[in-house]
Amino acid sequence: MVATTPLRIGLFGCGTVGGGVFNILNSRAAFLKSVGVQATIEKICVRNPTKQELTDLVKGHGTTITTKYDDILEDSSINCIIELMGGVTDAKDVVFKAISKNKHVITANKALVANYMTEITDLLAAHPTVRLGYEASVCGGIPIIHTLQSSYSGDVIKEIAGIMNGTTNYMLSKMEKEGASYEAVLKEAQDLGFAEANPSADVDGFDVQAKIAILAKLGFGTVINPSDIPTTGITRIKAIDFEYAQMMQSTIKLLGVAKQTNPGSPHEISVFVSPIVVPLSNVIGTCGGASNIVNIVSENCVNGAYVGQGAGRFPTANSVVNDVVRLGQGLIAAAPFGATQTGVAIQNDFSGKFYVRIRIADGLGVVRHVGEQAEKAGISIDSILQLPIQDRRNVDFVVTTDVTQLSKVQVMAAGIAKLAFVLEPPLFMPIL
Amino acid sequence: MVATTPLRIGLFGCGTVGGGVFNILNSRAAFLKSVGVQATIEKICVRNPTKQELTDLVKGHGTTITTKYDDILEDSSINCIIELMGGVTDAKDVVFKAISKNKHVITANKALVANYMTEITDLLAAHPTVRLGYEASVCGGIPIIHTLQSSYSGDVIKEIAGIMNGTTNYMLSKMEKEGASYEAVLKEAQDLGFAEANPSADVDGFDVQAKIAILAKLGFGTVINPSDIPTTGITRIKAIDFEYAQMMQSTIKLLGVAKQTNPGSPHEISVFVSPIVVPLSNVIGTCGGASNIVNIVSENCVNGAYVGQGAGRFPTANSVVNDVVRLGQGLIAAAPFGATQTGVAIQNDFSGKFYVRIRIADGLGVVRHVGEQAEKAGISIDSILQLPIQDRRNVDFVVTTDVTQLSKVQVMAAGIAKLAFVLEPPLFMPIL
Repeated sequence: MVATTPLRIGLFGCGTVGGGVFNILNSRAAFLKSVGVQATIEKICVRNPTKQELTDLVKGHGTTITTKYDDILEDSSINCIIELMGGVTDAKDVVFKAISKNKHVITANKALVANYMTEITDLLAAHPTVRLGYEASVCGGIPIIHTLQSSYSGDVIKEIAGIMNGTTNYMLSKMEKEGASYEAVLKEAQDLGFAEANPSADVDGFDVQAKIAILAKLGFGTVINPSDIPTTGITRIKAIDFEYAQMMQSTIKLLGVAKQTNPGSPHEISVFVSPIVVPLSNVIGTCGGASNIVNIVSENCVNGAYVGQGAGRFPTANSVVNDVVRLGQGLIAAAPFGATQTGVAIQNDFSGKFYVRIRIADGLGVVRHVGEQAEKAGISIDSILQLPIQDRRNVDFVVTTDVTQLSKVQVMAAGIAKLAFVLEPPLFMPIL
Repeated sequence: MVATTPLRIGLFGCGTVGGGVFNILNSRAAFLKSVGVQATIEKICVRNPTKQELTDLVKGHGTTITTKYDDILEDSSINCIIELMGGVTDAKDVVFKAISKNKHVITANKALVANYMTEITDLLAAHPTVRLGYEASVCGGIPIIHTLQSSYSGDVIKEIAGIMNGTTNYMLSKMEKEGASYEAVLKEAQDLGFAEANPSADVDGFDVQAKIAILAKLGFGTVINPSDIPTTGITRIKAIDFEYAQMMQSTIKLLGVAKQTNPGSPHEISVFVSPIVVPLSNVIGTCGGASNIVNIVSENCVNGAYVGQGAGRFPTANSVVNDVVRLGQGLIAAAPFGATQTGVAIQNDFSGKFYVRIRIADGLGVVRHVGEQAEKAGISIDSILQLPIQDRRNVDFVVTTDVTQLSKVQVMAAGIAKLAFVLEPPLFMPIL
């Protein structure tokens, strides 16, 4: 094996994942050396340098602990940084300065990558020896970034859809299996430490927003501002939606999606985050618990699915280490956000079938009125689903549409919301 | 993008996959050039140079068609060959001579790779500029070779198990869904052109043998002769096995497996091909139709599954093209069979639970006699499953074991086969 330049690494942030990276790089040092990679964490920058876990971690390794960014960034003997701080203020400063100082960067920071792809690309162009690895930024232990970078060169991607948030997948899987309410599963996820006290980033879909922005760029070549991605979380999903989904041999998953707006037409894509009715026969529908999955539909490969742990100390640390090894072997390409397509525009008024749940006080003429709203919007109704009614003052029923456009469904839902017997704005979501 | 040496390719064999490679390299030429890769198929070597499909394919491209290997191998302007001939006689001569002539090699030939890993490694060591790509040799459109090479550097793999033959997966999925007999689904697969007139390579598991040999080397570092891998096909699986599997919330899949012989003990692995009882809750159990899946259990990543089309013109051609692009970008590592583990021995007497189906003429004392044989073999029985009896002279029932060893199950099965009321040697298979 050809010897390469040893990597002298400065690590920013040393919590769960950082500790895992430190452990793996040490326990696997002999193997890494055998494949030509020498990588040592020389310095660690943390907010609290006296934490017992940190002291125990570095004991006997001669690692320098600091609280000052520049102790690493201004150290010319450090040729690579690993950024695991999170956030986009300090982390951005650290990463940008590292690149400016010709240090390689490996990061797990989805928000930073998703929000600054253009700026990072420009900065890297001015520092052509620098390489950027960000495998750990999307779906923890699933090598989805590298797969998109290296396994679709001769292909044309048509759709990327994935479960990319373990917390909400755990919650939805529980709701499906146990018929539990949203509130009950959220509390349980919080008690288990899966969900934060303020769960918004997960349950409102913002975590997935950044991830699908990154995958959309890699798959379609289109830079998209995460905050421009239409995003619906799972807070309005009820136990009864799983009953209706079951009638459709389906389940409900929170997906990040980037797909051709109209199938077969490669120049426009829709990018969105939404709960989606997924058939159980689809591989995405079978992915339960806290697992993640990314499914890619493409011209050559037809269908490829990548399943694994989307978070956690060692899965995520493993992805960081993979980037370290690729870097050490000179196998990270110079253009980190390269895509196989160009000139693809965003057009979010996508076509498809939709699930619309309508909550009403039961009365005469309900179906006729809803049918009128569908007709006005130019929508053809595919089916009307009605579970046995328990309480006539509070009835949920479901309309599924034929293939139509999102904008038409929005018109129909707004019309239905205004009907006298309708108790709340209809909940609608795409059917995969 | 840094310009790299243009690849001037000689293609050996131009059937379904070869034509797909030719098409993709041409239709994607502009994109490939944009990422620094120039790759043109200069010459094609085939047995029948006047075939109309071939004439149509190369029309206007100035490609030279030849029937003589040396027209490519002795041409010093050709710096890369793609070998899609199949077989291990001529293909071996072609690949070995190409390497000797310092030409890069890309191949889809699982048998060649599986049987000659050591010789190829030695030859490459003597020609250090040559790179070998063989992504297409295992599971068509699934990038499993590259994933094993590049995404487990810091990890320790414990188990690789996969559905790696689309024909038999199609047949087993049909048997499961429709209660059809083995003979009926084989005939249907043959009529559809999925199965050969002589289906042995598929149904007897030999196709999977070569593939699991390759994955075992990449995952565990152990070279294993494919013909030394214990291999059981699907010819003895009956409709009734799916009924019993269903009672166990499971199905039956033909898997190639390489796994730690005893969980947690990393120095011995078992490698085998066998039908296996797979729980429907396992991602492998949900993979139906002609799809392929490889599931990897490892220390860091816990579980990763890779699903896709295992064969076909464009999925397989896509993998060949991925190798071409990696080669053109200098991203193929020098050691093509490198693994993250060393010193792992083969010890096929693995432990696990087993499914044993026993066909008998019903009589008194059956359970006692079978129980005696289990006791003699040192096996603890977990359950006895018995569907309602239709014909007392011809009864299938199933015994499942507690965790035991393969060798003990073999002893038990041999003992049971000798009992007077037993009509044929018991069918046994592992439970995943």
